[in-house]
Amino acid sequence: MASHNLLLLPGDGIGPEIMGEAKGILNWFGKRGIASFETETALVGGASYDACGKAISEDTMKLADQADAVLFGAVGGPKWDGVPYDARPEAGLLRLRKDLGLFANLRPAICYPALADASSLKRDVVEGLDILILRELTGGVYFGEPKEIVTLENGEKRAVDTQLYTTHEIERIARVAFDLARTRRNKVSSAEKRNVMKSGVLWNQVVTKIGKEEYPDVQLEHVLADNCAMQLVRWPKQYDVIVCDNLFGDILSDVAAMLTGSLGMLPSASLGAPDPTTGQRKSLYEPVHGSAPDIAGRSLANPIAMIASVGMALRYSFGLGEAADLLDKAIANVLATGTRTKDIAEKGSNAVSTQEMGAAILKEL
Amino acid sequence: MASHNLLLLPGDGIGPEIMGEAKGILNWFGKRGIASFETETALVGGASYDACGKAISEDTMKLADQADAVLFGAVGGPKWDGVPYDARPEAGLLRLRKDLGLFANLRPAICYPALADASSLKRDVVEGLDILILRELTGGVYFGEPKEIVTLENGEKRAVDTQLYTTHEIERIARVAFDLARTRRNKVSSAEKRNVMKSGVLWNQVVTKIGKEEYPDVQLEHVLADNCAMQLVRWPKQYDVIVCDNLFGDILSDVAAMLTGSLGMLPSASLGAPDPTTGQRKSLYEPVHGSAPDIAGRSLANPIAMIASVGMALRYSFGLGEAADLLDKAIANVLATGTRTKDIAEKGSNAVSTQEMGAAILKEL
Ligand SMILES: CC(C)[C@H](C(=O)O)[C@@H](O)C(=O)O
Ligand SMILES: CC(C)[C@H](C(=O)O)[C@@H](O)C(=O)O
Repeated sequence: MASHNLLLLPGDGIGPEIMGEAKGILNWFGKRGIASFETETALVGGASYDACGKAISEDTMKLADQADAVLFGAVGGPKWDGVPYDARPEAGLLRLRKDLGLFANLRPAICYPALADASSLKRDVVEGLDILILRELTGGVYFGEPKEIVTLENGEKRAVDTQLYTTHEIERIARVAFDLARTRRNKVSSAEKRNVMKSGVLWNQVVTKIGKEEYPDVQLEHVLADNCAMQLVRWPKQYDVIVCDNLFGDILSDVAAMLTGSLGMLPSASLGAPDPTTGQRKSLYEPVHGSAPDIAGRSLANPIAMIASVGMALRYSFGLGEAADLLDKAIANVLATGTRTKDIAEKGSNAVSTQEMGAAILKEL
Repeated sequence: MASHNLLLLPGDGIGPEIMGEAKGILNWFGKRGIASFETETALVGGASYDACGKAISEDTMKLADQADAVLFGAVGGPKWDGVPYDARPEAGLLRLRKDLGLFANLRPAICYPALADASSLKRDVVEGLDILILRELTGGVYFGEPKEIVTLENGEKRAVDTQLYTTHEIERIARVAFDLARTRRNKVSSAEKRNVMKSGVLWNQVVTKIGKEEYPDVQLEHVLADNCAMQLVRWPKQYDVIVCDNLFGDILSDVAAMLTGSLGMLPSASLGAPDPTTGQRKSLYEPVHGSAPDIAGRSLANPIAMIASVGMALRYSFGLGEAADLLDKAIANVLATGTRTKDIAEKGSNAVSTQEMGAAILKEL
């Protein structure tokens, strides 16, 4: 039986609570002999800052580098609003993405049939929705230099961020997009602002070339990022895989997630390039939602996004697609029986706790 | 009777058709003796490129500079996909914004009661919606330098765009936001990505300072741009005025517009700083929608966004608030009687032409 070594980084807010339920799921798969998981737990984000003055320590970075996969909860909260920019909770997450080379961020936006009515959109617009936002995660304005605030001679300040993309960065994310599309509905929509940004011009050229030369069988369309945001609201089912840069991906994936009414249910995977000798990819799995400090510690959080992130780890890091299907099915079944945490419960109806939801999914498994 | 001098730039696609209807409205106000309008018409975008190889000519820039206000239709279309970057249709619009100093872009997102069902969102989420996206329009990644594609030694290309903001650019747009909020529901939401971008950090600081020192009576909140996009989809009525940078404004205003189901109805105003001696502002008014090349020349376009842009010109450039109210009312009344162009007609029901819609509004006036 294969043994996998996982680093758990619960983080802040509701992170520790939902990670607790994810652990329960891992244990179940271990006990059933499907695979054995060794886990280690460490601090990240505000919790790490409180302990060592950094959003992630060098020791933890080393653990992350050695792990077969990282499970990440969520970071941040008003408690750390005043900490120095370089030590803010988000810096821990950004460093993990960058230093592990996790350039491909998969954000599925799926509307669970049982939850279609929780969406602010009309049922027919979102029912059955299953699209995937593929976000470039280690480039663009998130990491480009210069990134600074300088004081000018007249006393004013000037802030600069740099949007930067090179050919190979776009090529590799484009290939992931086309590969994913082949396993789905065979369509890639590439979103940029080529009418305003030079990075959009290059993005468009490179994606077009990769599509033509390597994936002539996959349908490719180009859409301006602002129009894409609109179209997501108007009729999201026109899409299959949307590929875009780091910043557009940040926004478009949040819009897509919110459409589904299932924000508390959506996982994400961040993958690196396969190692040339072992074929292994570095990987990190995290819920799309944030740390929700307002409900932290009260057993109100929905653990499904975190549990579904375990599912993505099974599928993309450990080659356990069947186990992942089993888990996804269990989640859908539990939802179909009407079990709801507070975020997805109808007004006035009973909601279960974080732990009860975790237990219900275990039972269904 | 005051005389105002307007430059009409119909542009491409449906631009000329909808501009025709806007002209009819101006004529009506002229004939009724409410004000006299002198108009001149010139080319912009693809139409200008075809005529002179540039997206806007120097002569037209001079006319725009001398006009009391510019009415702009829409630019672009597949016909010009291959033209050089600097001559692409959008370059004409971007030059107008930049050279006229139109830093404040007002994009109201209003849900016309008669059209609430045209939205992809549930009626209760959008009915009565009336929010305003205030977009900074002359700074940020749209205009920052360097903005280029260079070829590296290894043959790869590298594209760079520069997001750049200085204190005074943020101060002046913040003041517009707070001033507008005072005439509305007294709340400003400032959207940025301070957790990732230095420009977001500075934006946040400057808006906070202006709010505290100059507008303590206006409620101010800060929201991350990705979360703002989400919240717009979830419950847009929580907002009044949203102020943000050029690129976030591009996307957020499109999301907001699409929520209302009234995209073909939404106008926008782009304003410069008041002239220190005359108090006059440069200004440009344009629909939020694009040039819709697919329906151009077929009398199918909805002229309401263009006509409502005339209303904004009356209000913001000519001090004719009552005339603007009259026009807005006429539009709402015509919609209430069920008159619809194709874009907002229910499936199977009759739709009127561009010209019939213009005539109906004139008649209602
Ligand atoms: C926490 C933050 C830095 C992060 C981002 O902007 O990438 C988050 O919004 C996300 O989408 O994962
Ligand atoms: C046409 C294009 C350059 C423009 C922009 O990106 O600003 C448009 O999308 C807009 O929102 O006015």
